[in-house]
Amino acid sequence: MNEQLQLIKSSIKSIPNYPKEGIIFRDITSLTEVPEAFSTTVNLIAEQFKHAGITKIIGTESRGFIFGAPVAIALGLPFILVRKPGKLPRAVISQNYQLEYGEDTLEIHSDSIQAGDNVLIIDDLLATGGTLEACVKLVQRLGGQVKHAAFVISLPELGGEQRLRKLGVEPFTLVDFAGH
Amino acid sequence: MNEQLQLIKSSIKSIPNYPKEGIIFRDITSLTEVPEAFSTTVNLIAEQFKHAGITKIIGTESRGFIFGAPVAIALGLPFILVRKPGKLPRAVISQNYQLEYGEDTLEIHSDSIQAGDNVLIIDDLLATGGTLEACVKLVQRLGGQVKHAAFVISLPELGGEQRLRKLGVEPFTLVDFAGH
Repeated sequence: MNEQLQLIKSSIKSIPNYPKEGIIFRDITSLTEVPEAFSTTVNLIAEQFKHAGITKIIGTESRGFIFGAPVAIALGLPFILVRKPGKLPRAVISQNYQLEYGEDTLEIHSDSIQAGDNVLIIDDLLATGGTLEACVKLVQRLGGQVKHAAFVISLPELGGEQRLRKLGVEPFTLVDFAGH
Repeated sequence: MNEQLQLIKSSIKSIPNYPKEGIIFRDITSLTEVPEAFSTTVNLIAEQFKHAGITKIIGTESRGFIFGAPVAIALGLPFILVRKPGKLPRAVISQNYQLEYGEDTLEIHSDSIQAGDNVLIIDDLLATGGTLEACVKLVQRLGGQVKHAAFVISLPELGGEQRLRKLGVEPFTLVDFAGH
């Protein structure tokens, strides 16, 4: 691992037993508090996709906004929000997805993606990939495609990378943590 | 109003009767979809505070993240999150504040602000100033001070600017909308 990735990884605090017993939570708020680590994170993602023909960036509520917005600005691309139900003011489409217990829903403005859009989805963390799959479906239902998704952190044991590849999405992750 | 502010204002869609009858909602998601408008917004805020001795940027969940994160990166400053209850993994302090009906709570990590910090709070919209006042109290309880807050949109009829000035906070707003 090079020096930049080492700085990013060392800026992410690990919180044992949060949000529940047995889970080690990887905390990106400690990363955004270190200016060089935060800007390096954004620069590495932007650099990776500079020549990938991306037309729009999606950030998922709410930690995806923290990384998605600066990457969209760095690349000069439209920044599209995917939000929890009832938060977007214009006409939306909705997509349900499974959680460990129960299910949840994500929404996107119907007019925010057009046929031919090549969308990069950005989130802080790739775990099981459930949220990402819902985002991909929202984009596809509006006629766009998702070939790439970027994450600051991957928890490879949870299978998210394989799940995304099955959807035709290549994940780009900066740092991996074993254990979860 | 100059050309840059005109671009920003014209990129903000107005949604009548959202979230309820009689309210005109000012939609910043239409602004972030216009790359030049979004980057100009971030640049104007960063430019304004480049020499103001700011030590940390706070963004409030969740639309404040969209503007706060890129401004923090532009200024090379730590980005601190103020979130809704139960979302921050380390030790927090909490602050209640009044809503139109009932009340709500915001939290900040206890170790994220130190005595002597000069904090700039960033949010998308200044309405009554209730959220901002709660943020200011969180910072002050941790020994920091807030002299400035920046907003993309102000609804001047709702009194937020006067409320902030009473707290010793000078608001910086890019575009004002009458009616709400």
